[in-house]
Amino acid sequence: MINVTIWNENRHEQKSAVVREVYPEGIHGSIKSFLKEDFQVRTATLDEQEHGLTNEVLDQTDVLVWWGHIAHHEVENEIVERVKNRVLNGMGLIVLHSGHFSKIFKTLMGTTCDLKWREADEKERLWVIDPSHPIAEGIGEFIELEKEEMYGEHFDIPAPDQLIFMSWFEGGEVFRSGCTYQRGKGKVFYFRPGHETYPTYYHKDIQQVIRNAVRWAEPTKLPKPIYGNAKPLEEIKPK
Amino acid sequence: MINVTIWNENRHEQKSAVVREVYPEGIHGSIKSFLKEDFQVRTATLDEQEHGLTNEVLDQTDVLVWWGHIAHHEVENEIVERVKNRVLNGMGLIVLHSGHFSKIFKTLMGTTCDLKWREADEKERLWVIDPSHPIAEGIGEFIELEKEEMYGEHFDIPAPDQLIFMSWFEGGEVFRSGCTYQRGKGKVFYFRPGHETYPTYYHKDIQQVIRNAVRWAEPTKLPKPIYGNAKPLEEIKPK
Amino acid sequence: MINVTIWNENRHEQKSAVVREVYPEGIHGSIKSFLKEDFQVRTATLDEQEHGLTNEVLDQTDVLVWWGHIAHHEVENEIVERVKNRVLNGMGLIVLHSGHFSKIFKTLMGTTCDLKWREADEKERLWVIDPSHPIAEGIGEFIELEKEEMYGEHFDIPAPDQLIFMSWFEGGEVFRSGCTYQRGKGKVFYFRPGHETYPTYYHKDIQQVIRNAVRWAEPTKLPKPIYGNAKPLEEIKPK
Amino acid sequence: MINVTIWNENRHEQKSAVVREVYPEGIHGSIKSFLKEDFQVRTATLDEQEHGLTNEVLDQTDVLVWWGHIAHHEVENEIVERVKNRVLNGMGLIVLHSGHFSKIFKTLMGTTCDLKWREADEKERLWVIDPSHPIAEGIGEFIELEKEEMYGEHFDIPAPDQLIFMSWFEGGEVFRSGCTYQRGKGKVFYFRPGHETYPTYYHKDIQQVIRNAVRWAEPTKLPKPIYGNAKPLEEIKPK
Repeated sequence: MINVTIWNENRHEQKSAVVREVYPEGIHGSIKSFLKEDFQVRTATLDEQEHGLTNEVLDQTDVLVWWGHIAHHEVENEIVERVKNRVLNGMGLIVLHSGHFSKIFKTLMGTTCDLKWREADEKERLWVIDPSHPIAEGIGEFIELEKEEMYGEHFDIPAPDQLIFMSWFEGGEVFRSGCTYQRGKGKVFYFRPGHETYPTYYHKDIQQVIRNAVRWAEPTKLPKPIYGNAKPLEEIKPK
Repeated sequence: MINVTIWNENRHEQKSAVVREVYPEGIHGSIKSFLKEDFQVRTATLDEQEHGLTNEVLDQTDVLVWWGHIAHHEVENEIVERVKNRVLNGMGLIVLHSGHFSKIFKTLMGTTCDLKWREADEKERLWVIDPSHPIAEGIGEFIELEKEEMYGEHFDIPAPDQLIFMSWFEGGEVFRSGCTYQRGKGKVFYFRPGHETYPTYYHKDIQQVIRNAVRWAEPTKLPKPIYGNAKPLEEIKPK
Repeated sequence: MINVTIWNENRHEQKSAVVREVYPEGIHGSIKSFLKEDFQVRTATLDEQEHGLTNEVLDQTDVLVWWGHIAHHEVENEIVERVKNRVLNGMGLIVLHSGHFSKIFKTLMGTTCDLKWREADEKERLWVIDPSHPIAEGIGEFIELEKEEMYGEHFDIPAPDQLIFMSWFEGGEVFRSGCTYQRGKGKVFYFRPGHETYPTYYHKDIQQVIRNAVRWAEPTKLPKPIYGNAKPLEEIKPK
Repeated sequence: MINVTIWNENRHEQKSAVVREVYPEGIHGSIKSFLKEDFQVRTATLDEQEHGLTNEVLDQTDVLVWWGHIAHHEVENEIVERVKNRVLNGMGLIVLHSGHFSKIFKTLMGTTCDLKWREADEKERLWVIDPSHPIAEGIGEFIELEKEEMYGEHFDIPAPDQLIFMSWFEGGEVFRSGCTYQRGKGKVFYFRPGHETYPTYYHKDIQQVIRNAVRWAEPTKLPKPIYGNAKPLEEIKPK
């Protein structure tokens, strides 16, 4: 069974009654509630010791889900480095919504990960661009969200290895909303929706995509590649 | 359980005692013997009615494995078209070795699929380029084949969506040996090794890769996208 | 100087007064008028001998621009094969709008190239997704077209090598509007806009993109790769 | 005319008589000598003020060429950040050989960029994988280097946007030797050859590739994308 750790900044939930009403158990609690049927799930939050991401926890994590927003800068660099090493060594990483600006996502991408945004209660429609991909399994032609925050292009990311969803926004923008990346032995999936004031994580299609992504991001069990000085496998002729 | 159909031209086996000795049950029989533990497997060959690829058979095929060489031109265009439609509608396709020149592979690639080749009992070493990919699961740093036919670059294919293996050949060439492609709702994997006079399909790593590829190529169950004239989802203002 | 041949089906212009009014010199004439400042340009149309695409013409063509719609089926297979061989041997190909369903594009893609469409005088906004790409040179954040035909996802193409533009449509759809592909020695660019009843090819940004694409698609002068049986470059040890 | 700055660590040249004999004017001097015919070229080295990469210099740099090896850690983080910002804003970057482990390359890739290596006077053959690409212009089927350092897979980089060269090594390894990446508005090219004790940068094909890469990496002049809060371009309906 896949071991999932859901990391949430968990600050909006403390500060805002509106957010607390939408997510009374926190965004992490909400995500846990639909993932726990299929996976072994734990949660971790910013204000825990080591942000809840101790080596012991990560030892038991196959896939890490990440939600953060207003406190990206409070995530300690040492923990970011630790998580990055885990990803490069195979741990799956699913970055949600405002996690685009998290230290862990930016360091894995190598770009600013900047974008356009707007909070205006507008409609988003995520079109399936790659109907062969297991992350889109069980989705129809598109996912429609009545109200979401807008994220618009240009999204400053490397060209995704695979582009699975593209969003249409009522206000006139588009966005690459479902992007996969290989980094070392690890697989990374960025998924756009999930502003804290909307009930996005209760939407069954959004839940289905995250569930699919966890399965897709499961680590391979290949040995770690051997780096450094290497003896020849074949004879090299004197020259 | 995934339904696999292994298609083999099955001509070398009829004509050549050498090949018959290596593959007494045919290349298809050999591949079946290691896939049947994990999948529901049937075989089909060129000389059967409709090359064994009737609509009934394809209705029960999730993933089709293809081996052909000297009789590509005998595969009827109608059957090629039928298989192509199945792939575009989700059936997985695994093309092996000399299948690079099959009609079905060429029509899905859009290029000549030409390459360099040589039969010289030479060593091939397939390096894992993407250790995050499930098709490489269970493989070490490389697969070594003591004797194989050489295939060398330039290999006239579209740039693969994902490049998983690269081959080193004793005679001085390299080759993109494990390549994935998305085509419509279907997933395609090309895997280089498997010349008919060598016992390549008895190699446990080669078997592992084909097994992995079958799992990876399993169809998604998304509805077929709706094409053609479409009513607007949003109001269009008169201009 | 780059030699450009603009191929146009040139049938709407014969049949429809509306189209003739928008493009009195034909779509090919309109495109020629803005390309001729920078390139050596000729035109060719369906009803000419060999559709105007004789070997002599193609010998003098570095980049071929293609517009077709209602008469794709009238393009002879022999000519399609001839053009395909030229592309694989280095000729650039720029496929415009309804050319998505042309025989030449479909055979180079290997998929149906199907899509959603609607003629409803609606607004299209093409967002620049890759601001590093020379095909986007000189464009702002987006190109806005007041009225265009809608093309919507799912667009049944292989994942582009590079995705440069994504369209937003007023009616609620999105589309991969600027896509590059490498095929053999040739470079292919698909560019969405250009319905025959709208003055799209008079829009300076659309002209700029096509001009950029011609430069980008210019053939390399590498020798054709050598295919077939190859002597070893290194000694192969007896086994 | 394209403005090129060649950055060289320039330490081996100080320490080693062998290297000095091969590159009496430094690796930077050697590269300058063949680029200056086509471009406006300056050089910069580690021991200069701000490593020679002042804002004034970078203001006049379209493409930066980078060679480093034993002193990557001496490059100040502030300068790395400065160069990274330039790349994301359009400056081309060509990373040579042991530059794979430079801070600037690693931060743009997001991975360890680790690899296998061996110094054994062995033969390298770089095969052209993408004969359509302008970076391969003027090269035959391969480039052969009689003696080079070996770099072998697994090379821990993100899957390249475009893979142009693949190396064969005498000792049995392969390597992705010519890789392109888009990062923000900038274009990055990694090119493997160039160990300091071999006369690699005097090889006319190696010179040709670097020359081609400079042209390819030239910045576009698109405006910088606008990020941050954005007003809607279309009316958003109250819900």
